[in-house]
Amino acid sequence: MDKKLFQYSIDSAMELGRKVIPYGDVATYIPELAKADKHALGIAVQTRQGELYTAGDCSTRFTIQSISKVITLCVALEKCGYAAVLDKVGMEPSGEAFNSIVELDLNSNKPYNPMINSGALAIADLLIGKTNFTELMEISRRLMKDPDLRFDEKVYQSEMATCARNRAIGWLLKSKDIISNDVEEVLKLYTAMCSMGVTAVSLANLALILANGGVDPQNGEWLLSASTVKVVKTIMLTCGMYDGSGRFAVEVGFPTKSGVGGGLLSVVDKEMGIGIYGPSLDSKGNCIAGNVMLKYLSQTFNMHLFHS
Amino acid sequence: MDKKLFQYSIDSAMELGRKVIPYGDVATYIPELAKADKHALGIAVQTRQGELYTAGDCSTRFTIQSISKVITLCVALEKCGYAAVLDKVGMEPSGEAFNSIVELDLNSNKPYNPMINSGALAIADLLIGKTNFTELMEISRRLMKDPDLRFDEKVYQSEMATCARNRAIGWLLKSKDIISNDVEEVLKLYTAMCSMGVTAVSLANLALILANGGVDPQNGEWLLSASTVKVVKTIMLTCGMYDGSGRFAVEVGFPTKSGVGGGLLSVVDKEMGIGIYGPSLDSKGNCIAGNVMLKYLSQTFNMHLFHS
Amino acid sequence: MDKKLFQYSIDSAMELGRKVIPYGDVATYIPELAKADKHALGIAVQTRQGELYTAGDCSTRFTIQSISKVITLCVALEKCGYAAVLDKVGMEPSGEAFNSIVELDLNSNKPYNPMINSGALAIADLLIGKTNFTELMEISRRLMKDPDLRFDEKVYQSEMATCARNRAIGWLLKSKDIISNDVEEVLKLYTAMCSMGVTAVSLANLALILANGGVDPQNGEWLLSASTVKVVKTIMLTCGMYDGSGRFAVEVGFPTKSGVGGGLLSVVDKEMGIGIYGPSLDSKGNCIAGNVMLKYLSQTFNMHLFHS
Amino acid sequence: MDKKLFQYSIDSAMELGRKVIPYGDVATYIPELAKADKHALGIAVQTRQGELYTAGDCSTRFTIQSISKVITLCVALEKCGYAAVLDKVGMEPSGEAFNSIVELDLNSNKPYNPMINSGALAIADLLIGKTNFTELMEISRRLMKDPDLRFDEKVYQSEMATCARNRAIGWLLKSKDIISNDVEEVLKLYTAMCSMGVTAVSLANLALILANGGVDPQNGEWLLSASTVKVVKTIMLTCGMYDGSGRFAVEVGFPTKSGVGGGLLSVVDKEMGIGIYGPSLDSKGNCIAGNVMLKYLSQTFNMHLFHS
Repeated sequence: MDKKLFQYSIDSAMELGRKVIPYGDVATYIPELAKADKHALGIAVQTRQGELYTAGDCSTRFTIQSISKVITLCVALEKCGYAAVLDKVGMEPSGEAFNSIVELDLNSNKPYNPMINSGALAIADLLIGKTNFTELMEISRRLMKDPDLRFDEKVYQSEMATCARNRAIGWLLKSKDIISNDVEEVLKLYTAMCSMGVTAVSLANLALILANGGVDPQNGEWLLSASTVKVVKTIMLTCGMYDGSGRFAVEVGFPTKSGVGGGLLSVVDKEMGIGIYGPSLDSKGNCIAGNVMLKYLSQTFNMHLFHS
Repeated sequence: MDKKLFQYSIDSAMELGRKVIPYGDVATYIPELAKADKHALGIAVQTRQGELYTAGDCSTRFTIQSISKVITLCVALEKCGYAAVLDKVGMEPSGEAFNSIVELDLNSNKPYNPMINSGALAIADLLIGKTNFTELMEISRRLMKDPDLRFDEKVYQSEMATCARNRAIGWLLKSKDIISNDVEEVLKLYTAMCSMGVTAVSLANLALILANGGVDPQNGEWLLSASTVKVVKTIMLTCGMYDGSGRFAVEVGFPTKSGVGGGLLSVVDKEMGIGIYGPSLDSKGNCIAGNVMLKYLSQTFNMHLFHS
Repeated sequence: MDKKLFQYSIDSAMELGRKVIPYGDVATYIPELAKADKHALGIAVQTRQGELYTAGDCSTRFTIQSISKVITLCVALEKCGYAAVLDKVGMEPSGEAFNSIVELDLNSNKPYNPMINSGALAIADLLIGKTNFTELMEISRRLMKDPDLRFDEKVYQSEMATCARNRAIGWLLKSKDIISNDVEEVLKLYTAMCSMGVTAVSLANLALILANGGVDPQNGEWLLSASTVKVVKTIMLTCGMYDGSGRFAVEVGFPTKSGVGGGLLSVVDKEMGIGIYGPSLDSKGNCIAGNVMLKYLSQTFNMHLFHS
Repeated sequence: MDKKLFQYSIDSAMELGRKVIPYGDVATYIPELAKADKHALGIAVQTRQGELYTAGDCSTRFTIQSISKVITLCVALEKCGYAAVLDKVGMEPSGEAFNSIVELDLNSNKPYNPMINSGALAIADLLIGKTNFTELMEISRRLMKDPDLRFDEKVYQSEMATCARNRAIGWLLKSKDIISNDVEEVLKLYTAMCSMGVTAVSLANLALILANGGVDPQNGEWLLSASTVKVVKTIMLTCGMYDGSGRFAVEVGFPTKSGVGGGLLSVVDKEMGIGIYGPSLDSKGNCIAGNVMLKYLSQTFNMHLFHS
């Protein structure tokens, strides 16, 4: 791949992305998030060959939010195994929004998948006792190669003060014996994980580890097992973009997870990791500019899983 | 790939598959299907190199049922284009059973995806006027390289006489102006497509065309456009196994579509096409032995999309 | 009761009713109904003492629509008995709109009650073989003391041509074996019953029979058994105004059934029957002016079931 | 009414009731309730003429549970007015179980009615600031003429420790801004009200006040306004027996509210109040023997609202 061409294409993607920013909105349901600069936009691409491409606000810190679901799922799979995880949550897309209660109550004795809030709370419950937030921060720093990764206390407090719906989900899970620990403890761990301050570069690093089967291509270190990475990438593909996951898989075609802080984590398998930051969100809660950028890159460089 | 080893593995897969046949059941809601031999089992694998591997009842004719949804989707994409198809049906997994009405009525102004009955009826409606059953049979014969492919009148009549729920879905679609043609005509076309008699070999041939980007590897003929094939494979991956699609993608990891006649159509991208016949179904309506066989083959030969 | 005062109150009620007509709308989903004069309004009150009070368009013919559900329920109870009716439909308010499908499919093996479309179709199915439309017309003429009652062919044809949603409900009932006759026959009987042309006076006469325990107070003729009438009045009270039934019972407080043709049938138990015609409907499909008029009369004359 | 005959009928009702006790079960979801004597059964009837009829365990104390919803609704109507109450909760039967979450989340911006848990929590929220538990206990003592009415600390603690589902409902209401006070405070008030220890006689006294339009017939004291009582009786009729309310209204025909402690509160309008205690419950959570007893009494003495 020609480096100049690739950098040029990333810059073009940024241009296309910027054009749709006005059509989205910054998340407002968590007061601290509403303060984000709507027009911020950044991208980082880390390749297996060790190249780092960046553009725009790639070093701005923002909270990881739902992308932390990928990390907790990785850790749960590593520490508890696939069977224990599957016992707690399903692997099925729900066709519903990220904070759905209805599906959980009507159809199911466990959350549909670990990428929606109910599933992530169940995973957090599974991790309590086996790890703690300090260790999870440490693991996150290593997976993202980001020693400066820090806990954003303000966002955490803002979120804990306004998470009535997550608390409702937590208590519903408790009433169904899906959560065994104290609901408030589970919520705290879940929310703390959402409050890690990352950058587009941190996300690109994590994505590359996933693209490379769990191994850091720069030093050959095995950070995650191959089977964990395989499960996580598949679930990101089928469930990572909430109720827009199916269409995203068709039109872009690689595993991606979004967060309402504006982040996107994209895995171009065996090739590269992409991190994006852009807090202007579309109606489904996904970074609106990032969507356009990833689609452009996928088409330009044949990154779709089923490219011909 | 060593041919002997591969044939040996297929035989091993058959052995494993046979063991779970007793735990499944032949579909009974269509009287004619209930007559199938529960213990029948066959597999055919067609590789890009032109090898055909088979085992068991690979030449037994059975009705294609829901696997025909793959063909009608291909034809709709080719004849009407992606935008027109997307206007009729979504691309999202529904998290619901194949014959769900609730999701359609509650959440949506169009069916969730083209792999559930409501979506396939919408696609059939789109095709009326642009093609007809005779031409669709002809296309199917070519895609499956099966000149003996025939219309099973008995199954068709049996199904038309007992399809009250599909008729309800059809009229619900009509009431929402999603179907514009006569409901009975749409049902007839949909049911006729389900009643095509195929073999495991026919399915393997179709799967290989999809694996090879729409091109017949033996003669280089372009049967389907690359973009159609890309869309179809992605939707098979996210929605092909009904409400078991997510877990199947995690554990097996390649696009597959099932039919209640006992068929399975599996695409190992860029490598091979697999067709399976086994009318003993699991609780979600998928061939119970086939599931086991595909999982075994996926693990043995690293066929998972995200294999390392 | 002072006759002059009562007539004066009815005239006052009309005045109040007329004021809200502009806030409603004529039903448009059946093309023939859309032709109704939105500003028409009429009322008839028939007392047990034999007085008839009227005001406005009390002799205008309009189609009975859903109020026919009361008649078919009466006939089903008389001809088949309570147990057979209860076997087909529940007696519970659904909390859903009149044409709901979701509740039926999700929660239940029979329609919630006989006052919603699914329940009325089940009752129509029960009646086929035991009676026919000609006899039902004859019974209706007698219950309403309206020899001129006639079948409105135009509305019937218009409704049969546009009843896709009812057809969907019919087929869903068929798929669940709740309907045993031909779906189209059931739909025809149901729709024909909806297409009877009545007047406010006809409805007042029927309401008085119900108020008087099934007996015509003028000649002592027993038209309906006491137990039938008791069941019907209770169901009208809890389910007669669709998903506005509960609040109507609280605020007005006597059994009432509405139809989208603009009719209202109200039973002031042991005292009088009220019929209203006003095709301007509120958002729940009930005559908007009639609602106001009945509330006014209930308050003025202490007609609430639980008046003190 | 002949007193001997009436006492004899009550005794007969008891006999009939006892026969069905084995087919029910004591509530077990609150551990303290599981300790109740399944075979206990008592009834008290208080007439407007001042007669008290009793049979069986009519002086046994048990917790009032959901019947307290009637008292809090009365107090809310008196202190805040109908409009403020209607602003918080609907008046519609839900067709769902008492602890339903789905309806609340899907269809509505407020709970369906004040007789289900979500509605009662909304009412409790409304009362905070305007009254407190001490005053509500005092009001309850007066309405039930039961100076010995006491707070059952054990049941309260047991319930607070196991009310995960109610907590989930509370937080869901909070997330929708239906509850404005602290969720835990609302839950405590609601649960404390459920934990009042009453007897069948206390319930009969309360029922008589309701039957008599809010006035104590023995001393003429106005305890509740006529309009409050009218609203409450109507809602008890349409929503008092959970998703069995409609059929109960048809077959028994007077306002009744049940509690999972085994209590039943029945209002024979303008005539008498009935209290029943029997902790063996049917599948809908209503006293199984009481149902049979009330049906027998209704038929024997023509107590149905629409009796002829």
